[in-house]
Amino acid sequence: MSAPGEPDRRTLMEFTSDNAYGVSPEMLAAIAEAASGPAASYGADPITGGLAQKFASVFEHEVAVYPLISGTAANALALSTITPPHGAIICHELSHISVDECGAPEFFTHGAKLVALAGSGGKISERDVGAALLRYRKGDVHQVQPMTISISQSTEFGTIYKPDEIRAISGVARRNNMKLHMDGARLGNAVAGLACSPADITWRVGVDVLSFGATKNGALGAEAVLFFAPEDVADFEFRRKKAGHLISKMRFVSAQLEAYLAEGRWLKHAGHANRLARALADGLTGVPGAEIAYPVEANEVLVRLPDPMIARLRAAGARFYDWSPSSNGRTLIRLVTSFASSEDSVQRFLSLARK
Amino acid sequence: MSAPGEPDRRTLMEFTSDNAYGVSPEMLAAIAEAASGPAASYGADPITGGLAQKFASVFEHEVAVYPLISGTAANALALSTITPPHGAIICHELSHISVDECGAPEFFTHGAKLVALAGSGGKISERDVGAALLRYRKGDVHQVQPMTISISQSTEFGTIYKPDEIRAISGVARRNNMKLHMDGARLGNAVAGLACSPADITWRVGVDVLSFGATKNGALGAEAVLFFAPEDVADFEFRRKKAGHLISKMRFVSAQLEAYLAEGRWLKHAGHANRLARALADGLTGVPGAEIAYPVEANEVLVRLPDPMIARLRAAGARFYDWSPSSNGRTLIRLVTSFASSEDSVQRFLSLARK
Amino acid sequence: MSAPGEPDRRTLMEFTSDNAYGVSPEMLAAIAEAASGPAASYGADPITGGLAQKFASVFEHEVAVYPLISGTAANALALSTITPPHGAIICHELSHISVDECGAPEFFTHGAKLVALAGSGGKISERDVGAALLRYRKGDVHQVQPMTISISQSTEFGTIYKPDEIRAISGVARRNNMKLHMDGARLGNAVAGLACSPADITWRVGVDVLSFGATKNGALGAEAVLFFAPEDVADFEFRRKKAGHLISKMRFVSAQLEAYLAEGRWLKHAGHANRLARALADGLTGVPGAEIAYPVEANEVLVRLPDPMIARLRAAGARFYDWSPSSNGRTLIRLVTSFASSEDSVQRFLSLARK
Amino acid sequence: MSAPGEPDRRTLMEFTSDNAYGVSPEMLAAIAEAASGPAASYGADPITGGLAQKFASVFEHEVAVYPLISGTAANALALSTITPPHGAIICHELSHISVDECGAPEFFTHGAKLVALAGSGGKISERDVGAALLRYRKGDVHQVQPMTISISQSTEFGTIYKPDEIRAISGVARRNNMKLHMDGARLGNAVAGLACSPADITWRVGVDVLSFGATKNGALGAEAVLFFAPEDVADFEFRRKKAGHLISKMRFVSAQLEAYLAEGRWLKHAGHANRLARALADGLTGVPGAEIAYPVEANEVLVRLPDPMIARLRAAGARFYDWSPSSNGRTLIRLVTSFASSEDSVQRFLSLARK
Repeated sequence: MSAPGEPDRRTLMEFTSDNAYGVSPEMLAAIAEAASGPAASYGADPITGGLAQKFASVFEHEVAVYPLISGTAANALALSTITPPHGAIICHELSHISVDECGAPEFFTHGAKLVALAGSGGKISERDVGAALLRYRKGDVHQVQPMTISISQSTEFGTIYKPDEIRAISGVARRNNMKLHMDGARLGNAVAGLACSPADITWRVGVDVLSFGATKNGALGAEAVLFFAPEDVADFEFRRKKAGHLISKMRFVSAQLEAYLAEGRWLKHAGHANRLARALADGLTGVPGAEIAYPVEANEVLVRLPDPMIARLRAAGARFYDWSPSSNGRTLIRLVTSFASSEDSVQRFLSLARK
Repeated sequence: MSAPGEPDRRTLMEFTSDNAYGVSPEMLAAIAEAASGPAASYGADPITGGLAQKFASVFEHEVAVYPLISGTAANALALSTITPPHGAIICHELSHISVDECGAPEFFTHGAKLVALAGSGGKISERDVGAALLRYRKGDVHQVQPMTISISQSTEFGTIYKPDEIRAISGVARRNNMKLHMDGARLGNAVAGLACSPADITWRVGVDVLSFGATKNGALGAEAVLFFAPEDVADFEFRRKKAGHLISKMRFVSAQLEAYLAEGRWLKHAGHANRLARALADGLTGVPGAEIAYPVEANEVLVRLPDPMIARLRAAGARFYDWSPSSNGRTLIRLVTSFASSEDSVQRFLSLARK
Repeated sequence: MSAPGEPDRRTLMEFTSDNAYGVSPEMLAAIAEAASGPAASYGADPITGGLAQKFASVFEHEVAVYPLISGTAANALALSTITPPHGAIICHELSHISVDECGAPEFFTHGAKLVALAGSGGKISERDVGAALLRYRKGDVHQVQPMTISISQSTEFGTIYKPDEIRAISGVARRNNMKLHMDGARLGNAVAGLACSPADITWRVGVDVLSFGATKNGALGAEAVLFFAPEDVADFEFRRKKAGHLISKMRFVSAQLEAYLAEGRWLKHAGHANRLARALADGLTGVPGAEIAYPVEANEVLVRLPDPMIARLRAAGARFYDWSPSSNGRTLIRLVTSFASSEDSVQRFLSLARK
Repeated sequence: MSAPGEPDRRTLMEFTSDNAYGVSPEMLAAIAEAASGPAASYGADPITGGLAQKFASVFEHEVAVYPLISGTAANALALSTITPPHGAIICHELSHISVDECGAPEFFTHGAKLVALAGSGGKISERDVGAALLRYRKGDVHQVQPMTISISQSTEFGTIYKPDEIRAISGVARRNNMKLHMDGARLGNAVAGLACSPADITWRVGVDVLSFGATKNGALGAEAVLFFAPEDVADFEFRRKKAGHLISKMRFVSAQLEAYLAEGRWLKHAGHANRLARALADGLTGVPGAEIAYPVEANEVLVRLPDPMIARLRAAGARFYDWSPSSNGRTLIRLVTSFASSEDSVQRFLSLARK
């Protein structure tokens, strides 16, 4: 039974966010195991020390790994390391860095500018990036200078960049002496969705720096910034400390990341979430009045539903965000599934929708 | 048995730092309990919601509580909320904010200046603060304007400000329209050491904003900024987000804080650490060549030992930091005890010292 | 005769920019007059002291006046005084603050975000501002918070906001608890163009803070920030100093401003420039292939001309900027006239265009 | 006759500051000459273009020259170009950058820290710098990293570093991979005082970056940053623009600098000021109760005078700053002479003192 004021967990259909869920048992166990006895602080412990090798194995490439506890920090620190104050960062106009981080990239870069592009399904294209670059005169001190492109994988709309799309964007970056950053808060969902190697959508197609997220996919709080080229690390470690993001008992963040990568666990979790999103999308297809707004390629479903249906779902315990205001009797909502979402909650949601 | 390359935990005498230790079982249990099922993210969960009341009860005063995972962030966010870019922060020249945060206060305040004062045992005095203020012309735009005083309780030297000392400093602050910040990364050790109420060394003697630490005293990673006057909160919440310090699964930080305060656990932990520091100090007193450098009032012992003794201790498994270079055959070292330090490790250390 | 490598001033047709011209004789005389003998530095001199009264008389309103020597500094300091780091500034996507200041507003505000709106003729509308505001959730810490609207008068396209248009925008500002900033680098051209009182397009229609420019209209280097409400000044004076913009021999900047306002000189200068721009526009109308792109209301003419005509004009000594790349055999160019532009250079330009 | 409320210039003895004086006739003439006709803005004009060669000739070394209008900006921009946010700048505790710029270096560097050292006569020594460096652990992310040493020449106390003293300091800088910055707001006074070549106290003894001042020595407003090694320029030009310090009609700043260097004018001006300071010092020596506090090597005299004498001098029209509060019936005052100070005002001052 639920406590007064709390939802009944048996009937709850929680699709608000993947960070509304708890911690996977394996990651919790890893924390507990790391919790006894002393260990060097600030990342000098053996678990943190072993991470680079483990990530290198998963990514098939040498990599510098810096554990963090916040996705916004991962993005802002990564971007500020590769973008000077007079630089510009090209991104999607609805990307997390552009609309959900309260200007953290601008703060950490000391005033660089985000150049926000439109683009279908949360994705920017090689073409749009190229067109945006034409607006900037190289070396002209009156203008910020485009230095960085940032893309989200999977996107905030549940879509996924194909390897070729990323390669095309990194081509623009290379030709213009820019760096390519990837916000991989949901990288697992992208890798699981494409059934590819993590390398196929990162360094192999030109990604320089990656914000690698585990929190939305089962960690208590564990992210990391990965640099595929050692020279890009530059003064990252000083930036991390100066921003208060060097965690003293870092081994507990690292232990989560270790457990997350072990035995392909991160992809099992992401695959589960993706399958349930797929099930929601499939189930809603054909429901009168329902319209899937974007390809459902990861763990998010953006769907227009009739307002009475939305009211009925919420009354029955479903939770999700409105994604835009009601229009013509329908509202675009977002449903997010997670490693811990249940098949049962999906089926109940679909039954209610079909009523 | 220890793993190859790892120290043997049976012989280890770990006095490097209180954040070299793990997590107290009760806090770990609190995390595990919070880990199942969904909860609202970014602090909208019930555990976080209940913190203000719990802290109010412990501090005997209404208080606004903002959980964080880093002490440097707690200090820098607190200071930047009460200090404008053209402000100055008066502190001890060896305080954590001055020498151990890589300029985080300067970054978060957008360029305020730390005015670092000397002072015995890591403490600044009312007198020294008053003298420093004479160097600044009120309202003169050529000079930064002293806006904030920051003190550490307990200090980085294991000493503790008495309530009257704090009241005297806050008197200077009040008379000069300044705010008083306390870095309470080790507040528990101070409260346990003085056997007073937390109120007696905070708001009752004029502290406006408190960095409250739990990490060094048994948490996995849990700090908080406490404001005793609601108007001082100002734009703190935006600053926290913009700096990447709004944790998505905040309930896990809050659960640690809740468990930390419950049943006086924080003071039991701190009392244990203090007692062992006391035992170290008492045991070393009288050992030929040993000289306790500062009053041992909390969980740190700064002591000069003969270099051969230091070498012998390290060879036998003792770990600690040198605090200053060797001079006349002796070196000032720092010994820190924690909630999880063992009586046995202290006794072994003392036996070795006495040999 | 001109020096080798320098243009022949007799044939020169200089329409590149209004800051390519020199200094008006009256302002030069004012500098010379102020140059003898000592005077208090940093603005404590009598000329600076008298400015507020002189501006108040011209603007028919009490006003706080802060002389500066850079328009970018005026904008960035003004905006940062009224916009916190977590704020957003709504502006035109091609405004000076958005594309010509290398991110100065972001630097001075410590990371606030510019929200750049499209809008015909360099103007934003009440409607577009209202629509943009809908994208921001009030008080949501994940998002920057719109705090400021900034408009240019006259605009970078040579158009002018009518008093009613400004009033409508300031209405949106008021209803949303925002401030209205005006970039008046070319305010004189707007006042002369509308034949109104400066008050009619500033405080009377809701402008809170004004960047007042004289440099483009005949000063050596003189700008000012004007606050119409004393409480908006806040910490402006500290910001000015901290940014290195408190000029030591300020009387020379102030002397220029004094001479600029005296005897309606600023409006005579601006009126002259406007008339020549009008003459260029009228003369080009009807020239085959020429197309005036925006209403010519101030001292700028944006016009599409056939590429061969452009080549012919440049070969004959005309100077101006291309405003966008050639398309279908024509290029959009910008012609700017100034207080010192000659009727003769305009007529020669038109003759060449008509050939 | 003087205007009401203004001092009578015939009796005025103005020793407040060298920037309380006006503009030298030659520099004013240079401005006037540059004022007619158009010229490219933002430094693309021929006068600015010719500066590098003229400075190279004076300094006997290739040099990159960036005109500015503010000494604080020159220092802050120079320092921020060579010091990253996690860096530290070692300087004298009473240097201009430390106490008179409202934290501009901290703002421009995005939070670097000034390490302020004591030192007699406003000078820091090789030894003190070396000792300060011992407090920082190289590469330790918890600490800011000393990257820059900054010295003033001549100092704020009217003393001058000898070439060997500078060479010793730059030796420390080289050995620690640091840069040496010189605040040369009064460089002319130092060169005139030492009767040396400008090279002898700059690049030849290891100065990397120089804030070159003309304003205090007769300019309306003209400073420059000089880099002796091209690679140190880095992103200086973007920083200058982003801070609003790229002056649109830059030729007028450059014309001042050109006239300042021409015909050794800067050294004539400085020599005049130095001689008058010397005359003041000599004249005060032996006056009962007067005590010269520091060697008078440039254009400043710091002297303790009996309070009644000070009152008498002020009553008679003398102007100067108190440099510290009265103590034992005497006060330390500062007398500054300038290019335009008169022999007569010095003699009147001395007569009054001797009464």
